[in-house]
Amino acid sequence: MKKGVKVTPWEVSGEVNYEKLIKEFGISKLNDKILERIRKHTGELHFMLRRRVFFAHRDLNWLLDEYERGNKFFLYTGCGPSGPLHLGHLQTWIFTKWLQDKFNTELWFQFTDDEKFLFKNKSYDEIQKWTYENMLDVIAIGLSPKKTHFLIDTKNIDVMYPEAIKIAKKITFSTVKASFGLTNESNIGQIFYTSMQAVPAILPSVLKKKNIPCLIPLGVDQDPHFRVARDVYPKLGFYKPAILHGMFLPPLQGIEGKMSSSLTTSAILTTDSPKEVEKKIKKYAFSGGQPTVAEHRKKGGNPDIDVSFQYFRMFFEPDDEKLQQIYDDYKSGKLLTSELKEILIDKINSFLREHQKKREQAKKRIDEFLLK
Amino acid sequence: MKKGVKVTPWEVSGEVNYEKLIKEFGISKLNDKILERIRKHTGELHFMLRRRVFFAHRDLNWLLDEYERGNKFFLYTGCGPSGPLHLGHLQTWIFTKWLQDKFNTELWFQFTDDEKFLFKNKSYDEIQKWTYENMLDVIAIGLSPKKTHFLIDTKNIDVMYPEAIKIAKKITFSTVKASFGLTNESNIGQIFYTSMQAVPAILPSVLKKKNIPCLIPLGVDQDPHFRVARDVYPKLGFYKPAILHGMFLPPLQGIEGKMSSSLTTSAILTTDSPKEVEKKIKKYAFSGGQPTVAEHRKKGGNPDIDVSFQYFRMFFEPDDEKLQQIYDDYKSGKLLTSELKEILIDKINSFLREHQKKREQAKKRIDEFLLK
Repeated sequence: MKKGVKVTPWEVSGEVNYEKLIKEFGISKLNDKILERIRKHTGELHFMLRRRVFFAHRDLNWLLDEYERGNKFFLYTGCGPSGPLHLGHLQTWIFTKWLQDKFNTELWFQFTDDEKFLFKNKSYDEIQKWTYENMLDVIAIGLSPKKTHFLIDTKNIDVMYPEAIKIAKKITFSTVKASFGLTNESNIGQIFYTSMQAVPAILPSVLKKKNIPCLIPLGVDQDPHFRVARDVYPKLGFYKPAILHGMFLPPLQGIEGKMSSSLTTSAILTTDSPKEVEKKIKKYAFSGGQPTVAEHRKKGGNPDIDVSFQYFRMFFEPDDEKLQQIYDDYKSGKLLTSELKEILIDKINSFLREHQKKREQAKKRIDEFLLK
Repeated sequence: MKKGVKVTPWEVSGEVNYEKLIKEFGISKLNDKILERIRKHTGELHFMLRRRVFFAHRDLNWLLDEYERGNKFFLYTGCGPSGPLHLGHLQTWIFTKWLQDKFNTELWFQFTDDEKFLFKNKSYDEIQKWTYENMLDVIAIGLSPKKTHFLIDTKNIDVMYPEAIKIAKKITFSTVKASFGLTNESNIGQIFYTSMQAVPAILPSVLKKKNIPCLIPLGVDQDPHFRVARDVYPKLGFYKPAILHGMFLPPLQGIEGKMSSSLTTSAILTTDSPKEVEKKIKKYAFSGGQPTVAEHRKKGGNPDIDVSFQYFRMFFEPDDEKLQQIYDDYKSGKLLTSELKEILIDKINSFLREHQKKREQAKKRIDEFLLK
C-alpha cells in the first residue's frame, strides 16, 4: 500500500489498491471459474459479482463443496450503529439479500452497538438510538423475517457472551495489536471487542448443536476480525467461515477511501430528501469531465475516476449494456457531467423514495426480526 | 515487599507483610476510632475486626457518614468458582453475613465464572460445575435469600454487560498492565475482565435508578480491581465504594501465602470428611512447637507461627479469653502441639458437620438466590 493508505475495521483512508490488499490480507481473487460455480446455483450472477464489486473471497470453494453435498450454509453480516446509514452500507446488504434469496438461507445480522460505543466518542444512549434507526434501514432492504435474525450485541449478550469468552481465551493482546493497530492506550473494551464480532459465525451452530457452514459478505475493511478469528474457530470445533469481500462505494469527493456518514459532503444518506441528494451530487460528486462543455465535447470525460459513473457501476445500473452505453457516451464527450448527474439523481431519488417508504413501514416490524 | 512476595488477584505467594501492603496499595489501617464507630451501630465488634483479621479499609468513614445520615449501603462480595472451596473463602463470607445481619443490608454476591474460565486451564463446563458447587457453600453460610442476590457473570450478563462496557471504555491496557501484571501475551478476555468485577459495585444503583453507597468486604488480593475501578465510578456518576480488606487464612504448610484449593496439602476444603480433616491437620499443619515433648514442656511453643493457633485466632475461637488461654498455655509449654491439634480438629469437624448439612439443604434453595 502507498503511504497514507489505511484499511482497518476502524479506518479506511487513501486510495485503496485492491490488488495489493488481496496480497496483504492473504485473500483470493474471485475468478471466472468460481463465479461460474456460483452461477450454476443462482441461475444468473448479481452485477456486483459480474463487475467484481465483490472482488475477493476466503474458502468459497469449500463452502460450495459443502453446499453441493447438501450441507447448507447460513449468511452472517452486520452493521455498526453510530450514525445515519449511507448508500455504501446498503450496497453490501442488497447483495446479501440476493444471496439469501438465491440460496434460500438463514441470515444472522449483527448490530455491533457495543463496538460503536467503545470506539466512538458517543454516549450509550446515542448509540442505542442509532441502533433503532439503523434496524429500520436493514429491514427496508426487504429481508425475509422468517429467515433473518437480528443480533444486537448488548441485547443478545446472554447467548453471545459465553461464546465470546471462549474465543477471547484464545486471542492475545499481541495478536489484536498486530492485526488492528490497537495500542497500550486502547481501552480494554476495544481490545476485547473482536471476540464479539467473531461470535455470529458460530452462534447458529452452537444454538442448533451442529456444525453449520457460514458465509460472510462484508466490506474488505472488516476482514481483519475474521483473519484473527479463523485461527480460533477450529480449536473450538467449528468450521472456518467463508468470506466474500466487497469494495467500498467511493465517497462523493473522489474515489479514495470509503463513504462516511460523519461527513455530509462524503455520503448520500438513506434518509436524504430529493433536494439534498440533488445538492450533494451536483455540488460534491467528483467529476471526471472537462472544465468546459466545449472541451468535454472535444476530449471526452474519464468515467473511471468519475464518482457518478462509479455509483452507476457499483449500485444503480444493473444492466451491463446500459452501463456500457453510459461509459461510452461519457468517454466520447457525448454525455456531459451535468447530464450524467441528472440521470444519477433521478435513479438515487427513485431508489430512496421506495427505501424510505419501506423504512417507515419497518417501524412496526422490528419485533419480527429480533431473536426469540 | 520482599523479593518473591506477590499479591495480585491471581497470585498470592511469599510471606505477606500487611503493613507494607497498606502503604503499597494506599489503603488505611483500621484503627480503634473507626472500629468504635462501627461498634456504635453493631453493639459488639466481630472478632475478625477486634483481632484485625480485617485490617484495612478504603473510605469507611465516608460510608458511616452516609449511613448515619440515613443513606443505607449495600454489601458486595464474591467468589471465583474454579474448584472446591476452603475455609479461607468461608472466612470472608462469614464476616460478610455478620455485616449483613448487623446493618440489615442487601448483599450482591458475584460468581466470576467468566474470570475463572479465562484465567484457569479449565473447560467452560468444568467452571459451570464449580459455580453450582460453590453456590451451595455460599448459601450454607446462612445468608438471607430475601436480602441476597447472586450475580453469575455468564448468566446475568444481560444486566451486567452494558455497565461493563461503560467501565471498560474508561480503562486502558496500560492501566491493567500496571495494576495486575497482565502482559501482551494475556488473552483479551483477561484484559477485559476487570470491568466485569467492577460492575456489582454500581449495579443496584443502576437498577434502582438512584445512587446507593456500597461496601465491599474482600481478601486484600482483590483490591487492585477496585483501585482501578474507583477512578472510573465517579466519571459515570456513581459513588466510589468503601472497602474492608481481609488477611489471608494461612495455608496448612505455614503462615506464608494463602490457602489454595489446588493443593490438598494446603487447604481444609468445605467438603472434607472428619477423617480428611484429622489427617490434614495432623500431617500438614505447620507447628510452632518443639521437636520433643520434653523440650516443648521446657521451652514452650510459638503460637505466632503455629498454623493451628492461627486458625483458632482467625476463625474458630471467637472468645478472646479462651483464645488467650490457648495462647498462654501453648507458649508456656503446658499445651502440646498434639493437644492443640486435637482441639482444632474437633472444632473444624463440628463446624463442617453443620456446614455440610446446610450445604446439602442448599441444593433445593438455589432458585431463591438467583436474580429475578
